[in-house]
Amino acid sequence: MKIYGHRSFGNPRRVAIFLDEKGVDLPFEPVDLGAGAHKTPDFLAKNPAGQVPVLELDDGTCIAETQAICRYLEDLYPEPNLMGVDSLERALIEMWQRRVEFGVFSSGRYYVRHCTRMGSRLEPVQIPAWGELNREWAPEQMQSLDRRLAKSRFLSGERFSVADITLIFALQGVTARGGVSVPDDCEGLKRWLRDVSARPSVAATAPPGD
Amino acid sequence: MKIYGHRSFGNPRRVAIFLDEKGVDLPFEPVDLGAGAHKTPDFLAKNPAGQVPVLELDDGTCIAETQAICRYLEDLYPEPNLMGVDSLERALIEMWQRRVEFGVFSSGRYYVRHCTRMGSRLEPVQIPAWGELNREWAPEQMQSLDRRLAKSRFLSGERFSVADITLIFALQGVTARGGVSVPDDCEGLKRWLRDVSARPSVAATAPPGD
Repeated sequence: MKIYGHRSFGNPRRVAIFLDEKGVDLPFEPVDLGAGAHKTPDFLAKNPAGQVPVLELDDGTCIAETQAICRYLEDLYPEPNLMGVDSLERALIEMWQRRVEFGVFSSGRYYVRHCTRMGSRLEPVQIPAWGELNREWAPEQMQSLDRRLAKSRFLSGERFSVADITLIFALQGVTARGGVSVPDDCEGLKRWLRDVSARPSVAATAPPGD
Repeated sequence: MKIYGHRSFGNPRRVAIFLDEKGVDLPFEPVDLGAGAHKTPDFLAKNPAGQVPVLELDDGTCIAETQAICRYLEDLYPEPNLMGVDSLERALIEMWQRRVEFGVFSSGRYYVRHCTRMGSRLEPVQIPAWGELNREWAPEQMQSLDRRLAKSRFLSGERFSVADITLIFALQGVTARGGVSVPDDCEGLKRWLRDVSARPSVAATAPPGD
């Protein structure tokens, strides 16, 4: 079993944090996106979307999409639990995961892709007005998360979960590459960011220079 | 337990199809989005994102986000299974669900929101160039799904799953309101669309006029 993607870059990092939290060491095989290695016939046979990460099982079966990979790994390595121990917790973690994904994660991603030089290498057509609109949304999205984190240690409650992994990845990305700061009054979010950034799984997978 | 949202409109319809497939009858309470009922303090206390659907449990706990609601309901009403019976199937259904959601579902949604009159009531700022770009992506996204459905009865294999619900909702939306047709050569996708549109759960929840 191995993962295509680099432990410190892009969405594969979310899988790396997930595995580090569980103390599981699986091989990551970097894919040279700059050289178009994700668009070769060999790679497209593994994931027609041409994206990393991809989890390849020993029988050759390939699972794409970060959350789908995490769900498979959660079943295989259930401890410590990161996706919920009962019906309600599973649903609430998924709810927070999706709020992050369709909120600040999406906004940061669109801003970087449509308004930065790095984005121009990823998007064939950049629409700066779309990127700027997303950047304008980010502070309000952070304030909404702040209201939660002012009264809850982690997004879904007292336990670190996959939703926190998505948020740390999104926030570090939007602040480092998007140039968007966490609003000053977001004390809860800033406290959470300090706590989570210090976790070994997060620190060990940080991109060089972050 | 009840669901906020209308059985035939928007994302609540995905939950209605999901429940109909399981033969479960739960009450849906429509929320008058046109009158801003989703932005009242009462509703925002249930879902700060101001979106439907929301599943409210008997103790008042609220679960937002369609997929999170479906996950909860899948645990509660496991048969017929719609989200996978083992680790691999759960992961593959989630993979397809997300490919649809970040593919044709997202493109159709952005096109309608940024390029149509209906969209002008939903988006404070419309960016037509962004909507048009998404519309241009839709045929290729459908062709990618067609390659799968040319050789597989449903998205994740031989069984109907939540991923098919997301796709039928997305496709009916993009063709009815987005004015985007399924490309002529997509025989597999068209065969799937005919099969799935005829399911009682899908027909019974169709918006009036569709």
